Amino acid sequence: MADGLLPELGACLEALAERFGEALRTGHAICNQHASGEGPAASRPPDAVLFPTSVRDVSDGVQICAAHRVAIIPYGAGTSLEGHVHALRGGVTFDMSLMDRILAVNASDLDVHVEAGVTREALNGHLRDSGLFFPLDPGANATLGGMAATRASGTNAVRYGTMKDVTLGLTVVTPQGVVIETGGRARKSSMGYDLTRLYVGSEGTLGVITSLHLRLFGIPEVIAAGVAQFQSAGEAILAVIAVLQMGVPVARLEFLDEVQMGACIRWSKLTELLAKPTLFVELHGSAVSVADQQDQIRDVFASSDCANIQWALRTEDRSRLWTARHNAYWAAKSLCPGYDAVTTDACVPISDLADTIAEVKTLAAHSGFVCPIVGHVGDGNFHVMILHDAQSREAADRLGCDIARVAIRRGGTASGEHGVGSCRKTLLREEHATAVQTMLQIKSQLDPMGIMNPDKIF
Amino acid sequence: MADGLLPELGACLEALAERFGEALRTGHAICNQHASGEGPAASRPPDAVLFPTSVRDVSDGVQICAAHRVAIIPYGAGTSLEGHVHALRGGVTFDMSLMDRILAVNASDLDVHVEAGVTREALNGHLRDSGLFFPLDPGANATLGGMAATRASGTNAVRYGTMKDVTLGLTVVTPQGVVIETGGRARKSSMGYDLTRLYVGSEGTLGVITSLHLRLFGIPEVIAAGVAQFQSAGEAILAVIAVLQMGVPVARLEFLDEVQMGACIRWSKLTELLAKPTLFVELHGSAVSVADQQDQIRDVFASSDCANIQWALRTEDRSRLWTARHNAYWAAKSLCPGYDAVTTDACVPISDLADTIAEVKTLAAHSGFVCPIVGHVGDGNFHVMILHDAQSREAADRLGCDIARVAIRRGGTASGEHGVGSCRKTLLREEHATAVQTMLQIKSQLDPMGIMNPDKIF
Repeated sequence: MADGLLPELGACLEALAERFGEALRTGHAICNQHASGEGPAASRPPDAVLFPTSVRDVSDGVQICAAHRVAIIPYGAGTSLEGHVHALRGGVTFDMSLMDRILAVNASDLDVHVEAGVTREALNGHLRDSGLFFPLDPGANATLGGMAATRASGTNAVRYGTMKDVTLGLTVVTPQGVVIETGGRARKSSMGYDLTRLYVGSEGTLGVITSLHLRLFGIPEVIAAGVAQFQSAGEAILAVIAVLQMGVPVARLEFLDEVQMGACIRWSKLTELLAKPTLFVELHGSAVSVADQQDQIRDVFASSDCANIQWALRTEDRSRLWTARHNAYWAAKSLCPGYDAVTTDACVPISDLADTIAEVKTLAAHSGFVCPIVGHVGDGNFHVMILHDAQSREAADRLGCDIARVAIRRGGTASGEHGVGSCRKTLLREEHATAVQTMLQIKSQLDPMGIMNPDKIF
Repeated sequence: MADGLLPELGACLEALAERFGEALRTGHAICNQHASGEGPAASRPPDAVLFPTSVRDVSDGVQICAAHRVAIIPYGAGTSLEGHVHALRGGVTFDMSLMDRILAVNASDLDVHVEAGVTREALNGHLRDSGLFFPLDPGANATLGGMAATRASGTNAVRYGTMKDVTLGLTVVTPQGVVIETGGRARKSSMGYDLTRLYVGSEGTLGVITSLHLRLFGIPEVIAAGVAQFQSAGEAILAVIAVLQMGVPVARLEFLDEVQMGACIRWSKLTELLAKPTLFVELHGSAVSVADQQDQIRDVFASSDCANIQWALRTEDRSRLWTARHNAYWAAKSLCPGYDAVTTDACVPISDLADTIAEVKTLAAHSGFVCPIVGHVGDGNFHVMILHDAQSREAADRLGCDIARVAIRRGGTASGEHGVGSCRKTLLREEHATAVQTMLQIKSQLDPMGIMNPDKIF
């Protein structure tokens, strides 16, 4: 086991094996399986994978690693696109998937207490008969701990917010192995620094999240999904701005450009639709409220170049549409079989979105890459999937950075929901030139040895 | 000027006077005027008051104070109830009221960039003809910088959130005088640590907020306000829980107990109402949506012991109701002329609210104090005003702490929106026993000399 390892790593793994027995795994297969997320491949796997089943396990594991200065990489479902789970310095990956208990559902308070390894689909499965649901939907069936760590959001964020908005409190194991509780179950608090939102989005660099208090929402009486097709991306996005300004409480508002729509039509057999700029809309509310929202949206779209809007109220029709949206990534990849995708995650003020997408489309056209675009445009967030082969990987990465820089220049951000990971570290310094020093001060104070998910974010 | 001052303070004031001239004030009257907020009286005033008019002024002022290790107390409108602006170690109060420019209104993006000294009423006055408004309403006409610093909220928070939810980004001058930008104008971001929400609620202990990017909202087409009176507080609060579980998007949901209602009836001449537990409700939306919300609320209240609900749709009728609610503090104080009030700010999970208020009423009855109760019950937040004279001040403080401890024991918080200040420091350690050490680490790292609003929070 200790072949070629540094002495302190060997001693660490021995101590972990003694404490954890079979819950510590060091086989090549399992280490390789934990080397990467769904994004770029890793240069090396971790040296071991630990499967904690309790907060005490995490605390003990962290203390053992800290005593030997061995890196710790928290791991949820491995769905990160940004190299968050790469073991860049080796070390021990903490796979949280066995901490998957739903500890309490408080229906009256619309909140839930879950361990970090519960996935969003598992939570919603558990809630099925309660009349409640957890709305955040990043597409992947991520763990809730992982979603908090990356400040994830997805298609419902325009109405229900991001993980920073739905997380009431966390249990965190610090890099010293101390267990702390941040926040609580009250809906709001002004008691001290907002550690909850410091750890949300900290990408495992400040500690290991072991449980979360999350907000839930009542399942709406009526859900209506609509598809509207436009002659131009600009008109589609102006319609989005108008809908938001009117205060229509849309639940989802998704944009697919003509390239992405062409791919989705073929992949998901949406033969009734055209390869044109398209909005997918979802409305939640009472029957009266949803009908009212439909009227408002119809009025807005009628004054654009929208050819028509079709509504799906039956569950199976809605499901077909959103499955097509969820499969957009695979549909896009099918445009260039065998190619990989660099996925951008820029987010801009909504008034800049039409110009931004026009500028991005020009960049993409000059680059020669096939670049379908999908976006959570209700938030100003859009993903360009840059399809590339092995030789053009670097050029694709450069285009991805150029697109992020367009967003930064326009007052936006390089990442709306995917995070910095090991892929956007240069962009972080460009976007937060003045604030990154303060972030580094916090990192160095709370994790002075730098053992928590090293080389991520910074 | 330097009589009796420490040498370093004298040198500091000389340097400030040289840099700022008339913008530095050291007269007794102005220092006394800045000694306290609207809460308890201070034991001493600051040694000087600085009126910066630019970020550069703040940065220079902070650097001069830092060079002489002199305390800095940021000051907005002085409406804090918790001793936030007390100069416990003397020092220089930075009065931000001259930094009152509205720097940009982005109507398409529903956001605004304001200097920290802009008050919420000034902002809404400026927005009057834009169709937009800033909804957060803590009652007092606080500055937006002060509201961010204390993580304020108020009557609209159940729908529009607290300052943590509506603040997109901040400009902050660090304790070293460095100007940093946190966040930006994008609706969401996953780029690095959430410094915006670290400074929101940091009560001036980590830096001076000089400007804010804030979210705005469209003025609703229809606003309806309603008053419902109940036989018991418990029934009123069960009705609140039912409304929230149904997902009715109420804008305000305020509770007044029978003692507070009696006071409001006399103070604001609400002679059509009875001194019974009462809910004030406000609904925002399109005409169709508001009518639908009214129907849903009528159905819920009909299955409680609610005698009737009366709706006010005309601006003047609504205004009369909410003026009465805003004046609840003065109405309450009129119950015991010449007395002061200790105001609690507990916030609990909503399912515990009825039991919590029952427990608090028992404590209040045993104490012998007159204790009217008002609450933002949509959030589980309520204020007990403990009316006391000079002799009973300490007993009133003890009762306030006991009420906060009831909330903490029930999984809630000692302060939903007023903050820790210099009044709730013991309660902070009780509520966040495990996390306070992490907060202190951040404080000591970012402000190693401890010059930023010393002795607040910790």
